[in-house]
Amino acid sequence: MTRNAQILLARRPEGVPVKDDFRFHEGQRPECGEGQVVLRQLYLSLDPAIRGWMNAARSYLPPIEIGAPIRSGTLSQIVESRLPKDAPFQVGDIVQALAAWEEFTAADAQQLMGRVEPREGIPLPGMLNVLGGNGLTAYFGLHEIGRPRPGETVLVSAAAGGVGSIVGQLARIAGCRAVGITGSDDKATWLVNELGFDAAVNYRTGDLRAAVKEACPDGVDVFFDGVGGEILDVALSRLALHARVVICGAISQINNTKPSPGPKNYMQLMAKRARMEGFVTLDYHARYDEARDILAQHVRDGALRSRDEIVDGIDNAPAHMLRLFSGDHRGKLMVHVADPIAPAELNQPSAGNAT
Amino acid sequence: MTRNAQILLARRPEGVPVKDDFRFHEGQRPECGEGQVVLRQLYLSLDPAIRGWMNAARSYLPPIEIGAPIRSGTLSQIVESRLPKDAPFQVGDIVQALAAWEEFTAADAQQLMGRVEPREGIPLPGMLNVLGGNGLTAYFGLHEIGRPRPGETVLVSAAAGGVGSIVGQLARIAGCRAVGITGSDDKATWLVNELGFDAAVNYRTGDLRAAVKEACPDGVDVFFDGVGGEILDVALSRLALHARVVICGAISQINNTKPSPGPKNYMQLMAKRARMEGFVTLDYHARYDEARDILAQHVRDGALRSRDEIVDGIDNAPAHMLRLFSGDHRGKLMVHVADPIAPAELNQPSAGNAT
Repeated sequence: MTRNAQILLARRPEGVPVKDDFRFHEGQRPECGEGQVVLRQLYLSLDPAIRGWMNAARSYLPPIEIGAPIRSGTLSQIVESRLPKDAPFQVGDIVQALAAWEEFTAADAQQLMGRVEPREGIPLPGMLNVLGGNGLTAYFGLHEIGRPRPGETVLVSAAAGGVGSIVGQLARIAGCRAVGITGSDDKATWLVNELGFDAAVNYRTGDLRAAVKEACPDGVDVFFDGVGGEILDVALSRLALHARVVICGAISQINNTKPSPGPKNYMQLMAKRARMEGFVTLDYHARYDEARDILAQHVRDGALRSRDEIVDGIDNAPAHMLRLFSGDHRGKLMVHVADPIAPAELNQPSAGNAT
Repeated sequence: MTRNAQILLARRPEGVPVKDDFRFHEGQRPECGEGQVVLRQLYLSLDPAIRGWMNAARSYLPPIEIGAPIRSGTLSQIVESRLPKDAPFQVGDIVQALAAWEEFTAADAQQLMGRVEPREGIPLPGMLNVLGGNGLTAYFGLHEIGRPRPGETVLVSAAAGGVGSIVGQLARIAGCRAVGITGSDDKATWLVNELGFDAAVNYRTGDLRAAVKEACPDGVDVFFDGVGGEILDVALSRLALHARVVICGAISQINNTKPSPGPKNYMQLMAKRARMEGFVTLDYHARYDEARDILAQHVRDGALRSRDEIVDGIDNAPAHMLRLFSGDHRGKLMVHVADPIAPAELNQPSAGNAT
């Protein structure tokens, strides 16, 4: 089999991405070069960060080129290898990668972000969610940047999203009051009743400032922000002394075609002796396994719940991705591309074409 | 003598303060209440912070009430006391205070911010400048929030101002490259030739972004900001990895009648894993003497220079204060109200009225 379905960047989006910004393409399955592996994608992770990489400007990673496949975090299986026999990755291994939206990808060993070590009680897609980018982003952003102390109030925006829903639960586990900002009453109810948030407010109804004030009567000690814009300004206006604002993203701004206004209340950082700090999860790569062990234990303890929203088929990836920006999802959006193959089958000489 | 010249807040300024926002008044010298002292002001400190206190909104201190005297840092002498004999303050002591713009003020002991201990080589007004709010703000803001390491680049806005000029020199002393942003070629030349900055750029001419890029070829590790607005955005666009942005003030915004736009480039904090943090010098009160010892030694070593711009007479205070916003000064603006009196003279029974 040489078919290799791909999703390419057709053009740079203006504002909110639309379907025509993506292009389905049937390419060839790549050759495995010397020192490379061929990955078969199992699951694609859908994250706001992808939207940033679709722009021409370099951020912490280079942009996706027009005509090249979209890039995201993936769970992938090594189906061919021309690495040395004693390499840390072998045919059959399931790995995490930052890889292309195509069924098969040739990758250098350096592109692989680690072998997936199954953890008891966590199904495979959970490696892209509670034990993947979402869980790791929530864990390192909250603990390394936000540094919450028991009894403090942690406010989180996009609270029903993949990262935010974990941040709030980790805040509870750390002994904090967890308050979420979300976009519907249904999601607010889910956060409180199912995930154990202490309070949740719907930013689409009523006076957000008053609602945040009521939900955070002692002010906000940690604000974990993935939204930016007006929501960030409201949170800044309610900071407690020595507050920490964790800048994780700005989904309200990511589709803007013009530079967005910045947080006009930033001088509250002075009045409240507060800190606003950004981070990039990849920087904590060496500590991923430590965090995964802790997160997996919380899941097994029943203290941490996450929700995988999975759609089948790589050709459905663009439509599914657009849901990131419409706010009609809870938890983590993923695309299921293929199931892993038993290593025994892959290790036969014809294994690469066996499916 | 019972005359007590005062400068009152006549009305809340709209935008840049004008003379009519102030009112000269001849009041009565206050009585010294039980547990109080009467202060005679020697020098008034003119600082952008005063403009903030003229607004109705509470910041880290309550607003100045309309009809009440303007408030600022002062050097004052205790000329009467009804404190206990063993109190830490005695008649004749020169103290720093946050006090009213009037010749004589009744104050509780808690309002006194410490006795002025003369330091070799520093004239009295220096206690309001290099060893006063300016020097302390520069010292704690740079070292506690900015935390520069040798070889890093420290960019400072309002670099020819009272605080900024000290920040740049302290950065040099810490082994950093010091770059200033200022409002005229004359001041830029002064910063480089007289104060030893490595470079200085005039934000009023040419392309500020390009000038900052050229002056900070390795990016900005620490940005010490007293200005805000466009200058803050330019600095954010040039941050180095793990940069620190010290929020000390926002003089470009302080006179605005509408909320100003915030820093639109704040998401650079994420891309650069950077931190933006505010501080209030008063929080470091317990360490003022430690900082003053270090600053005084730098002055005696010739490594730290500061400039006192002093005008005579409390009635000249409003006009002199307006110069804060016109940018036509270098170094610290102060008003000289009176000279200290020998304690022997004050300790006579009629001392209070002796002048």
